[in-house]
Amino acid sequence: MNSFGHIIRLTSFGESHGKAIGGVLDGFPAGIVIDTEFVQQYLDRRKPGQSELTTARREEDTVQLLSGIFENMSTGSPIAFLIPNADQRSGDYDALKDVYRPSHADYTYEKKYGLRDHRGGGRSSARETAVRVAAGALVIHWLKRQGIHFYAYVKQVYTISVPVPYGELELENVYASPVRCPHPETALRMEEAILQAKAEGDSLGGIIELVIRNVPAGLGSPVYAKLHAALGAALLSVNAVKGVEFGSGFSSVQYKGSELNDAFYATDEGAVKTRTNHSGGIQGGISNGEDIVVRIAFKPTATIARKQATVDAAGNNTEIEAAGRHDPCVLPRAVPIIEAMAALVIADHLLLNRTAKNTWNI
Amino acid sequence: MNSFGHIIRLTSFGESHGKAIGGVLDGFPAGIVIDTEFVQQYLDRRKPGQSELTTARREEDTVQLLSGIFENMSTGSPIAFLIPNADQRSGDYDALKDVYRPSHADYTYEKKYGLRDHRGGGRSSARETAVRVAAGALVIHWLKRQGIHFYAYVKQVYTISVPVPYGELELENVYASPVRCPHPETALRMEEAILQAKAEGDSLGGIIELVIRNVPAGLGSPVYAKLHAALGAALLSVNAVKGVEFGSGFSSVQYKGSELNDAFYATDEGAVKTRTNHSGGIQGGISNGEDIVVRIAFKPTATIARKQATVDAAGNNTEIEAAGRHDPCVLPRAVPIIEAMAALVIADHLLLNRTAKNTWNI
Amino acid sequence: MNSFGHIIRLTSFGESHGKAIGGVLDGFPAGIVIDTEFVQQYLDRRKPGQSELTTARREEDTVQLLSGIFENMSTGSPIAFLIPNADQRSGDYDALKDVYRPSHADYTYEKKYGLRDHRGGGRSSARETAVRVAAGALVIHWLKRQGIHFYAYVKQVYTISVPVPYGELELENVYASPVRCPHPETALRMEEAILQAKAEGDSLGGIIELVIRNVPAGLGSPVYAKLHAALGAALLSVNAVKGVEFGSGFSSVQYKGSELNDAFYATDEGAVKTRTNHSGGIQGGISNGEDIVVRIAFKPTATIARKQATVDAAGNNTEIEAAGRHDPCVLPRAVPIIEAMAALVIADHLLLNRTAKNTWNI
Amino acid sequence: MNSFGHIIRLTSFGESHGKAIGGVLDGFPAGIVIDTEFVQQYLDRRKPGQSELTTARREEDTVQLLSGIFENMSTGSPIAFLIPNADQRSGDYDALKDVYRPSHADYTYEKKYGLRDHRGGGRSSARETAVRVAAGALVIHWLKRQGIHFYAYVKQVYTISVPVPYGELELENVYASPVRCPHPETALRMEEAILQAKAEGDSLGGIIELVIRNVPAGLGSPVYAKLHAALGAALLSVNAVKGVEFGSGFSSVQYKGSELNDAFYATDEGAVKTRTNHSGGIQGGISNGEDIVVRIAFKPTATIARKQATVDAAGNNTEIEAAGRHDPCVLPRAVPIIEAMAALVIADHLLLNRTAKNTWNI
Repeated sequence: MNSFGHIIRLTSFGESHGKAIGGVLDGFPAGIVIDTEFVQQYLDRRKPGQSELTTARREEDTVQLLSGIFENMSTGSPIAFLIPNADQRSGDYDALKDVYRPSHADYTYEKKYGLRDHRGGGRSSARETAVRVAAGALVIHWLKRQGIHFYAYVKQVYTISVPVPYGELELENVYASPVRCPHPETALRMEEAILQAKAEGDSLGGIIELVIRNVPAGLGSPVYAKLHAALGAALLSVNAVKGVEFGSGFSSVQYKGSELNDAFYATDEGAVKTRTNHSGGIQGGISNGEDIVVRIAFKPTATIARKQATVDAAGNNTEIEAAGRHDPCVLPRAVPIIEAMAALVIADHLLLNRTAKNTWNI
Repeated sequence: MNSFGHIIRLTSFGESHGKAIGGVLDGFPAGIVIDTEFVQQYLDRRKPGQSELTTARREEDTVQLLSGIFENMSTGSPIAFLIPNADQRSGDYDALKDVYRPSHADYTYEKKYGLRDHRGGGRSSARETAVRVAAGALVIHWLKRQGIHFYAYVKQVYTISVPVPYGELELENVYASPVRCPHPETALRMEEAILQAKAEGDSLGGIIELVIRNVPAGLGSPVYAKLHAALGAALLSVNAVKGVEFGSGFSSVQYKGSELNDAFYATDEGAVKTRTNHSGGIQGGISNGEDIVVRIAFKPTATIARKQATVDAAGNNTEIEAAGRHDPCVLPRAVPIIEAMAALVIADHLLLNRTAKNTWNI
Repeated sequence: MNSFGHIIRLTSFGESHGKAIGGVLDGFPAGIVIDTEFVQQYLDRRKPGQSELTTARREEDTVQLLSGIFENMSTGSPIAFLIPNADQRSGDYDALKDVYRPSHADYTYEKKYGLRDHRGGGRSSARETAVRVAAGALVIHWLKRQGIHFYAYVKQVYTISVPVPYGELELENVYASPVRCPHPETALRMEEAILQAKAEGDSLGGIIELVIRNVPAGLGSPVYAKLHAALGAALLSVNAVKGVEFGSGFSSVQYKGSELNDAFYATDEGAVKTRTNHSGGIQGGISNGEDIVVRIAFKPTATIARKQATVDAAGNNTEIEAAGRHDPCVLPRAVPIIEAMAALVIADHLLLNRTAKNTWNI
Repeated sequence: MNSFGHIIRLTSFGESHGKAIGGVLDGFPAGIVIDTEFVQQYLDRRKPGQSELTTARREEDTVQLLSGIFENMSTGSPIAFLIPNADQRSGDYDALKDVYRPSHADYTYEKKYGLRDHRGGGRSSARETAVRVAAGALVIHWLKRQGIHFYAYVKQVYTISVPVPYGELELENVYASPVRCPHPETALRMEEAILQAKAEGDSLGGIIELVIRNVPAGLGSPVYAKLHAALGAALLSVNAVKGVEFGSGFSSVQYKGSELNDAFYATDEGAVKTRTNHSGGIQGGISNGEDIVVRIAFKPTATIARKQATVDAAGNNTEIEAAGRHDPCVLPRAVPIIEAMAALVIADHLLLNRTAKNTWNI
């Protein structure tokens, strides 16, 4: 259950406090130019310690590509990569050995496996997401050259929300903002709120909006493998995500069909477009060529620097005060993770679609 | 891409206007009592034509179990079943042959496959969900005997919402209400709104809340196969769903970590429980034994009896006025579909969990 | 575990003595011409009761195509089909309820599932192979139009073997022979041997040779999904098969590398060919464009009309004398099964290959 | 297509001449004692350069376990491991850049992927099998403690064959023989034949017999996932294998049903056994508790130190004389590979079987 995807398939491994984390990206087509620098730069966007807004844990997160590439070209063989763990203060976690952190995976993990590696949460650590970002970077670089672009940005932190639709934002500039919000005034207020929560030993959640541009019409499937079901699973699998919505999403319920349907029209060039995009680029589970739009809700980080009531492994009521170094708000670092997961899904469905029709193209 | 699940795996087939729809449920363990009457009764809960609130299309939806059962017991062989299509007025769809209905799958379907069966939308018809309900009924009956219960209900239609939390509702009585809302006053207002939309040739969406009780702690997986990612994909694959959220969901973002964490406590009997359930029964992707709580947003039915702007297959701007008979609001009939999909996911993960630990039990 | 294939995926259901058997063929590309008569005619090649050589069990084996086809064209939706069971003399099997037939699946089936449907062996009946033939016929018809041909024939029955290599046989005429051997003299001797075994209440095994022509070079995969591993699994899953070998197979061991290597040469037209074909058309797990050649060993039918020592369900030593009507030699009816399984594998890998290279073809 | 297995799933990566090869073993249950020394010792059994019989290529093949283990216990997380490539004389392969070695994967690989890493064959190198052995060792160690044992040995090299059935051999002593044949006289003759072939710049093939003891009855599946189909695919995926047979295999065809059926009998202790084991421990695709017996045919190594006719990448007829260092006979080093692949299959089916019956064991 540590693999993801059908044709393009990422298998991930490694714990937060082991020697390394890493992944194997299988099914990546042969003959695609690989830019290893791009992969490292993209991974750096998730790196901790980039600003005061994130955890003080230091990880260089240097990715080592081990296989599947020959003379800067993909060979069709699995692309394996390692990200060594540098800053392993396992000692920080000794106090957590026999106690369950509230709203963490400690208790549930132990129920599933009968035991657990308490140092940093084992596989439930968000550190695993570096693997997704490295793999996603390979795919993002490929699809960018095909004109498909993935833009995620922080739309809301706590109660502070970007007041304009994404069409009015410069999505190319998201990463210029430390909080990954391309609306400068709002970004400033978000940063203040995060720093204040940090000062209070507390944490904040928020909403990331994802926009995917130039996805060709026809991706997805009409029944179980609807494109938004695949994207939804991918995004819900990111740590701290508690909800996803597509297009008008939950607000759809406040409209009538006559208000919400997206009327088609033909452009002068003969392209089929929709006047509105309440569908969020997906109709009947299949992309229609419009922007794919998703919003993803993150709960506040579970780890806080405050005393909390909990239970120990022996079943006694007790209290806990978290050690370890954690993000007061995960959203800034989650932006590339969201883009990466979306890219893996889109690439997978692009390849699946090559088998959908009777083109005799072996 | 017409199969769903890992160990328990449903494969679905059939179009709205073909001879029959049906499914094959593989991986259902041997030795489980099968109650074929329960399956039919459960399927009847989704049947059209039960009240004025639903489509006038008549389908008896009689399920024929073909295999995998011997002397009222599952044999471990695949359980196949057919639901013949009775009321096929394909003629209703002739007008749709060369035109794309707005916010339907007509256009995207054709982009994917290069052709389409225009009679009722082919596989994108919600009729396919009868297959899910029949398969789900087999699983629901099994899990009920193990004490696991699936309750979905209509929490909101348009702007009309149940004003109390689910804990104050009698979830056992959902199906006594035609609109599948166990809060009588709200149900009445919902019904009025639906009938009014129907009279206006319009349609409404809404929110279904799903509560799963007595799921053992330990189901799910810490990375890609998080239990809520699996449930999310299952529920997003239901027609007209545009969003899902777990526990506090999107409203989580308005709270701080110190407010939202679910404190653990030990009961006098030694059980580990949480004081609150903002997590919605899933922590770190794994069930914690509390109620699993999900809300699912449905957009208004795309088919409306009004003139709409669209494009025809030749690429010309045109107008369409839908024929065919459709539900003004899909939520009442979607309640058993939501329960069925959730049950298939939970059963699958129950079986997967048998392989997670070193119990020497071949 | 009742599905087979990756992109093109067959799910099979039904027991020998239930209402029907059938299958769902998913992933069949849209836009391919379907010839339903061809499917029935091909299925007829496996039908029992065609000659004295086969079981007296009567099954019309009329296939009903239920979905996935519109105006004689595949739509990309799953193609489901039913084959009703006509001649169910379940009573024949009453004597077998509490006793295990030697070299049958009765005992092992019960060990796996804890119970069994004793009427005809449940899923372990060779009747299930009709499903494979029906699905295979859809694929064979498609690939034939692309120039890929599947020829299986009975090369050996008991000790009677075709004395010439397949290149000297008219493989197009296999089905003109009741025993499915295109070497008339040998066919005659085989038929005599089978009739004699039948008269003696005994059974015979043999070898089928499979030749696949015009498979393009490049199908398969270099590691686990080697093309011959995929074909091997498919063919070993056919009832009574005890061995498979490719190209020179087991006899390879009697040669040195210098004798067995297949030298390449370039034709005047620039095609790359091999002088010999000891590799059987597959090198390093990937097709090289030469004929794919496989030999498949079948044991004699386990059911014989003789008294045999065995054990009953209570664990007592006892004797059994088979009732039921069975083939004295399964090979004649197995020929289309072998072709069908091979075709499903080749089609699957043809589609998989569309994703292997960087052709930007969505 | 670089993953293998259902519940226990090995994903493999790396080329012969890259930085490292390695694997990820997912689905290994939590709570199993891991003996890292055993893994290294087992891997050493495949190591090149152990005797004159094998290639002179030096590889330390030191396995580094990276994840999934905590305090010598499996945690349920994926177990990743690396085997660095030490002796990479890529220069040896320069001459092969533009020419196809006969009966190698060079030509087919290029047809599949459109390009190839010519240094050592990329993924088609037998070096990849070290990954299988390391993963298999983890499983073999686990199952050994449960009483299940895997014994492979070299039964035949060229025309030199062990003259007695395996029951008369000391299978525990296979690895005491450099050629991995536990029949000392035959072993000596095999070694002489291999050294002579080596001296002549030639190569030899042979047969490995695999015996698996104490597999519980009930593993496998009655249709596509027959236990011998799964084993067959696993074994056919090993480099140079051209055939597999189970129990009496190809020789079954020379017997009548009355001669070949395995009569059941009950022991005094109430166990059900068979008098003979022509079935090779598998009946109807499911294990019956008897020894599982498989024979695997290996062709002679394709690489020989002789001039051979071939074609270059430009399509010209040419000649080749192999550089690189290779085994004159792969069988001695293939013995642990065969055991490893078999163990991965058996473990997978042991876990799958935990979901087959209605034992309420979450």
